[in-house]
Amino acid sequence: MAETNRQWLLKKRPHGMVTKDNFERREVAVSEPKDGEILVRNRYLSFDPTQRGWMEDRPSYVPPVAIGEVMRAGSVGEVVRSKHGDFNQGDLVQCTGGWQDYTTIAPGQGIFGASKLPPGTDPVLALSVLGVTGLTAYWGLLDLGQPKRGETVLVSGAAGATGSVAGQIARIKGCRVVGIAGGTDKCRWLKEEARFDDVIDYKSENVNARIGETCPKRVDVFFDNVGGDILEAALNHINMRARVVLCGGISAYNATKPVPGPTNLLNLIIMRARMEGFIVIDYMDRSHVAVPELMKWVQSGEIVNQVDVQEGFDNIPDTLNRLFTGKNLGKQLLKL
Amino acid sequence: MAETNRQWLLKKRPHGMVTKDNFERREVAVSEPKDGEILVRNRYLSFDPTQRGWMEDRPSYVPPVAIGEVMRAGSVGEVVRSKHGDFNQGDLVQCTGGWQDYTTIAPGQGIFGASKLPPGTDPVLALSVLGVTGLTAYWGLLDLGQPKRGETVLVSGAAGATGSVAGQIARIKGCRVVGIAGGTDKCRWLKEEARFDDVIDYKSENVNARIGETCPKRVDVFFDNVGGDILEAALNHINMRARVVLCGGISAYNATKPVPGPTNLLNLIIMRARMEGFIVIDYMDRSHVAVPELMKWVQSGEIVNQVDVQEGFDNIPDTLNRLFTGKNLGKQLLKL
Repeated sequence: MAETNRQWLLKKRPHGMVTKDNFERREVAVSEPKDGEILVRNRYLSFDPTQRGWMEDRPSYVPPVAIGEVMRAGSVGEVVRSKHGDFNQGDLVQCTGGWQDYTTIAPGQGIFGASKLPPGTDPVLALSVLGVTGLTAYWGLLDLGQPKRGETVLVSGAAGATGSVAGQIARIKGCRVVGIAGGTDKCRWLKEEARFDDVIDYKSENVNARIGETCPKRVDVFFDNVGGDILEAALNHINMRARVVLCGGISAYNATKPVPGPTNLLNLIIMRARMEGFIVIDYMDRSHVAVPELMKWVQSGEIVNQVDVQEGFDNIPDTLNRLFTGKNLGKQLLKL
Repeated sequence: MAETNRQWLLKKRPHGMVTKDNFERREVAVSEPKDGEILVRNRYLSFDPTQRGWMEDRPSYVPPVAIGEVMRAGSVGEVVRSKHGDFNQGDLVQCTGGWQDYTTIAPGQGIFGASKLPPGTDPVLALSVLGVTGLTAYWGLLDLGQPKRGETVLVSGAAGATGSVAGQIARIKGCRVVGIAGGTDKCRWLKEEARFDDVIDYKSENVNARIGETCPKRVDVFFDNVGGDILEAALNHINMRARVVLCGGISAYNATKPVPGPTNLLNLIIMRARMEGFIVIDYMDRSHVAVPELMKWVQSGEIVNQVDVQEGFDNIPDTLNRLFTGKNLGKQLLKL
């Protein structure tokens, strides 16, 4: 009883890159669960580029994190005390626990709710390839991208949590897969471990020229996590009836003024191509289709699941920035 | 025999707006038809924004007009002499006759070929609402836009040949239709004649604010002929699962350097929306579906067909520019 709950609250909205000044660290007593609620001790926190957007005070697909509110983040933890009939002490749950040790939550309520994980579930898998990240790759690539055997799939942010899974699914589907990532380590991992057909290092290569070289039959599906110049370069090489899957635009997430879009949008006309955005939460009721298939691919080794696990409560704010400085390879997590 | 054929040849590629210096006027003897060819006397020329793109030396959906070639343009004319079994003297034909009095052409060959029009066809209708312009509106709106009764359809370039028809089809389909056009005359015509529900005058009004006012349920389909700032403003107001139909981007056709795209493309993600380009030539084999329906709507008065008919061979180059200076209301034609 009377456990201490460490929390990082959003203190002021960031302008550009996030710093520790944007948050306030405090320690409070845990909030005891009321009827219908559970108390969860968070074990792993998930870090996703979209969380940067949640810190902005503007309309989006979820309300912004309020000033003074615990910073929002996905998590896996275990039930410490339950006043909800479906949950027992020790149950493993996935929820939006936020940047704190303990979360008091009513399953089925809130933005994302809380769901029980099967006993023995690996929290790391649950927060990466079998979680929001893997589902984003799965549905974005398959539902919007509609890759066909023999087509060319280009992925930006390819060494990230979503991009790396999207590319591997495209490889499983019989496509030529080319990834764009930053740095030799990521590019080597993409070719050797994730078995992309080719890679482009945007930090040292001319992306536009290299897309032309690595995609000689042009690009049928562009799975974009980056936007900006990378999107413009990709649009120069789209094939007839190409599908551009807008998953994210990390290049602009820390921008302090509006970032112009690509100058060549009209290539969508010339190539009769489509650009489409999506949010994975719309697909959550179909997770029973995606999760077993992703699990099968992980178990068979067709998908390698790469995670970067930081540790320590005080490192939480800096860990978010790893996504934007390109330090993470694969899914960014933090173990509490 | 030995008729004189006046021609406007492309002399040098334009940089910015087209001027008479881009063309060379010459007079030559008509080219007599060989076996399988017909000689057509052009009666009406069609002017379309896409023709500006044909003058650029870059890959597109059709090859560029070559230097020294007759400037390419759609036309309706009558057969003067035929060496093709399916065509007789006096037949009315639609072809890409170009900027000249006479065209020698092999039907079924070339970029767009030549097709016979039923006797009594009104050439003006054939080159406007029943021609490429109307078909562009029909397929772009219905196939890509997929408007549903009660939805809001926003059209840019709304007083132009394609926009005016797209908006009227949307009205026929039971949508709320808002048009964006330049100037009080065009806006009045859109409301009073074409019966748009509301109009926005981009020359005198704040387009972004006015879209918000005129589309209180947001924009389900944006039929865009303009691009640039207008596209950016529209993207601020798209509804969930909106369809952005990229028909054209006239705002950039005369640009002398690359024009940045919208800063808010990521709204496509937040709203799970789609932006898609198309070229009407892909739909030409389905004209037998579209033309009778368009004809029915014209005859019943549900679609008003507005044309701007200039006259005189020497006015051809200036007539093209009417599209870019906004002088035309509806379809721009020239009678030879």
